[in-house]
Amino acid sequence: MNPLYIHDSLSGEKKEFTPVNPDFVGLYVCGPTVYSDVHLGNCRSFTSFDIVYRYLMYKGYNVRYVRNITDAGHLEGDADINADDKMAKAAKALKLEPMEVAHRYTLGFHKMMDVFNNLPPSVEPRATGHITEQIRMVQDILKNGYAYEVDGSVYFDTVKFAKENAIYGELSGRKLDDLQAESRELKNQGDKRHSADFALWIKAEPTTLQVWESPWGLGFPGWHLECSAMSTKYLGSEFDIHGGGEDLKFPHHENEIAQNCGACGKSPVRFWMHGNMLLLNGKKMSKSIDPETGVSNSVMPDELFEGKSPFFSKPYSPMVLRFLMLQAHYRSPLDLTDEGIQAAEKGYIRLMEGQRALAEMKYEGEEALTSEDQQVNALMERALKDMDDDFNVPKALASLFVLVNKINSFKSGRASVNAISKETFEKLQKFFADFVFVIFGLKDETQGGDEGSSEIVDGLMEFILEMRQSARANKDWGTSDKIRDTLNALKIQLKDGKDGTTWTVNN
Amino acid sequence: MNPLYIHDSLSGEKKEFTPVNPDFVGLYVCGPTVYSDVHLGNCRSFTSFDIVYRYLMYKGYNVRYVRNITDAGHLEGDADINADDKMAKAAKALKLEPMEVAHRYTLGFHKMMDVFNNLPPSVEPRATGHITEQIRMVQDILKNGYAYEVDGSVYFDTVKFAKENAIYGELSGRKLDDLQAESRELKNQGDKRHSADFALWIKAEPTTLQVWESPWGLGFPGWHLECSAMSTKYLGSEFDIHGGGEDLKFPHHENEIAQNCGACGKSPVRFWMHGNMLLLNGKKMSKSIDPETGVSNSVMPDELFEGKSPFFSKPYSPMVLRFLMLQAHYRSPLDLTDEGIQAAEKGYIRLMEGQRALAEMKYEGEEALTSEDQQVNALMERALKDMDDDFNVPKALASLFVLVNKINSFKSGRASVNAISKETFEKLQKFFADFVFVIFGLKDETQGGDEGSSEIVDGLMEFILEMRQSARANKDWGTSDKIRDTLNALKIQLKDGKDGTTWTVNN
Repeated sequence: MNPLYIHDSLSGEKKEFTPVNPDFVGLYVCGPTVYSDVHLGNCRSFTSFDIVYRYLMYKGYNVRYVRNITDAGHLEGDADINADDKMAKAAKALKLEPMEVAHRYTLGFHKMMDVFNNLPPSVEPRATGHITEQIRMVQDILKNGYAYEVDGSVYFDTVKFAKENAIYGELSGRKLDDLQAESRELKNQGDKRHSADFALWIKAEPTTLQVWESPWGLGFPGWHLECSAMSTKYLGSEFDIHGGGEDLKFPHHENEIAQNCGACGKSPVRFWMHGNMLLLNGKKMSKSIDPETGVSNSVMPDELFEGKSPFFSKPYSPMVLRFLMLQAHYRSPLDLTDEGIQAAEKGYIRLMEGQRALAEMKYEGEEALTSEDQQVNALMERALKDMDDDFNVPKALASLFVLVNKINSFKSGRASVNAISKETFEKLQKFFADFVFVIFGLKDETQGGDEGSSEIVDGLMEFILEMRQSARANKDWGTSDKIRDTLNALKIQLKDGKDGTTWTVNN
Repeated sequence: MNPLYIHDSLSGEKKEFTPVNPDFVGLYVCGPTVYSDVHLGNCRSFTSFDIVYRYLMYKGYNVRYVRNITDAGHLEGDADINADDKMAKAAKALKLEPMEVAHRYTLGFHKMMDVFNNLPPSVEPRATGHITEQIRMVQDILKNGYAYEVDGSVYFDTVKFAKENAIYGELSGRKLDDLQAESRELKNQGDKRHSADFALWIKAEPTTLQVWESPWGLGFPGWHLECSAMSTKYLGSEFDIHGGGEDLKFPHHENEIAQNCGACGKSPVRFWMHGNMLLLNGKKMSKSIDPETGVSNSVMPDELFEGKSPFFSKPYSPMVLRFLMLQAHYRSPLDLTDEGIQAAEKGYIRLMEGQRALAEMKYEGEEALTSEDQQVNALMERALKDMDDDFNVPKALASLFVLVNKINSFKSGRASVNAISKETFEKLQKFFADFVFVIFGLKDETQGGDEGSSEIVDGLMEFILEMRQSARANKDWGTSDKIRDTLNALKIQLKDGKDGTTWTVNN
């Protein structure tokens, strides 16, 4: 196996990856808070880590992929006290029990992950499902002297921890002095000793909807706690990779490290991976209405798929969006624009057509080894090396497009497929399909429909193309025009090539 | 709203339904233990309660439907001690962490429920997600004197409970004396005082995989406990309907009642509903191999859908199976045979064709009120009355088929649609679609495929039917034969009627 290098956000370095545990690679990704529909920015982040998961499996690792569902304890503005609870707010607005809200948006989230063709994780633990484990972790932190209880709430003693542990602030670059300087202007510190402290367990108010019994009375866990408790439970106190969006570095991940160190005495994660933002027309997405334009700089996945966003000239399919995401490295920002996604649509169709042409191509005749063979092999190696270099998907994709050019030249007859060896040809077929479907997780939408239907469409199209050919041969222009109009109306595009006519559906 | 009568398995009586709570109807259904793929018998049970859920909503109730996932504590043979744990056994066999097993089969279960078009519940709580609630319930039962602790395990004191509470044994008809008589032959009672006692909390062995801390040390909850704790949490200590398969009456539901009464002092459920068994060729399904035939008397859903069972002559679609289930009352056994499901397939297609014909029919001309109008209205009322009579789906379905005859006579011209009033016609259109799609939860598979594809199929078929018509008019038998062969190969069946040619896909 070629070595894999991953950029670790904590050390800021690209390091060779070796698993902590010989049996499995532990991958933990912060999942959604299920109080509303999932955002497009979240979808980018989950898709980036889906490709990490897929590529690790492709390399032969047995991966235990844990992605949590936050269904309690997440307060507005990522505050840890004195703010509305996101679940409770949604429950009141929708007149539902909080767990009905959680279930509704968990289902919606799963559906959206399916739409993007993201694989489900191996375990999907819920915050509410791990109260005993979280309470236990708070007890351990208390025992180790890094937390204190005040009136039914328990706070992490950041000042003490930071004094004794140089790791505090490493991930986010926000050191304690800066936090204390910031805090002079802050209010609402509640019973905290220091403004940089954060809540591990929060005492319930009489109106709190989600409460559990604890050694400190009725309450609920702080948001940061669940990830520490659940990653430890399913992956151990030290595991391989922890992923999440850039915006989670502080306070969420910084505090996770503090909690894990505070409870278990060691830094939990070998590789911290952070995905960059998805921008819309060069600006951060935001739900707030721009007074000048009267619209908010945001777009939801369904709006994009259904063509209902004012920022886009037409609908774009989920696979086109996935393809767009492949075009940027996960650590770079990605700007979503109408022009950009239109170009991605063309690229996606081109890649799929290349894949299909290659899959249907037959190697015939003799081998005439040329420099072509070396080039094809070098391109395949290049793509794998790029993936091994911190999952450089856009670079690997570029090599695939050079290969598409080669495939097209074989197909059109401009070059002979015999210029490469039979072995290379077969390797290329497998390599290409693996990259497109297994690693990149694309589906071929250009052939349209589910299997049953698409069989029928294929059968009907085969018949219609025969009719068209015989109408043309008989100079029956009436029939051939009628076929053209029918197919146009159904957005079916024909392409006449040397091996006959092929067709695609333009969605 | 017409009154609804539901058969309550506890009292053995059909009683008028009135909700406990004005805000919502509470419906709790025992969900799957996620250690293997879901059985066809379970699918029948979940489909029966899906129709209960759908009909309650159709009647205008706001329903809170809770269906749990058992991911811990369920031992082999429904034992409560001294038996292998189902999750642990699967985890060992698959070399996975128990929660990976749970997630894998939860996803499979969700997929199968989707295939059957069963709606998701409002809340889907997990046993492992409610450890604190279960511990609290054990504490309450202990406090009330109906449980005792021995060496880290807690047992329910059935003898004491039965002496003081006449309800014990009411549901299953198995009274304490019978249980004690049975028990003389039983071994493996562990630390129980009486054989009829059952475990609420079970002490962990050093090899136990799923363990939690509790006031009694490390252990895990007994299987019956989760449903009592979760139904109380989400629906209150007294709620409307509790459903499950007949086989859950004892010990599961009998013990649930004992636990709830033991903790809260009241019987938890107004209506206990139990679904009857699904038989295969007249016999109970079983995985054990028959030495004579060399096969086991069982069939899994996918085997049926893919035509891979030796008991069936061809594949049957999920909607055909759902239709078969509609033909038996939920409290009657349903025998699955090749002949029976073949007949169901015909019935399903007939119902769908009737629905489509009615939906496409136009009311034109004048109203000529006849006895026909009264008959149609009476049939609609009849169907609703049958649903109100303990969800008598097969009877309601029979009325729908009489209506299909009427629809077909309107369509063929044997009778005039004007024989019913415009109001009745419009009511019938809505009524029929509501029954077929909303209440019975059927999908029209006879038109094939998802929306995008089916639009294409519709478009291509329209063109092909035109070609066929003009070929016939021109006596171009070559073309019309070719069209016939193409459609035959694709299993597309044509039907020439007075309004032109229609087509269906026979899967």
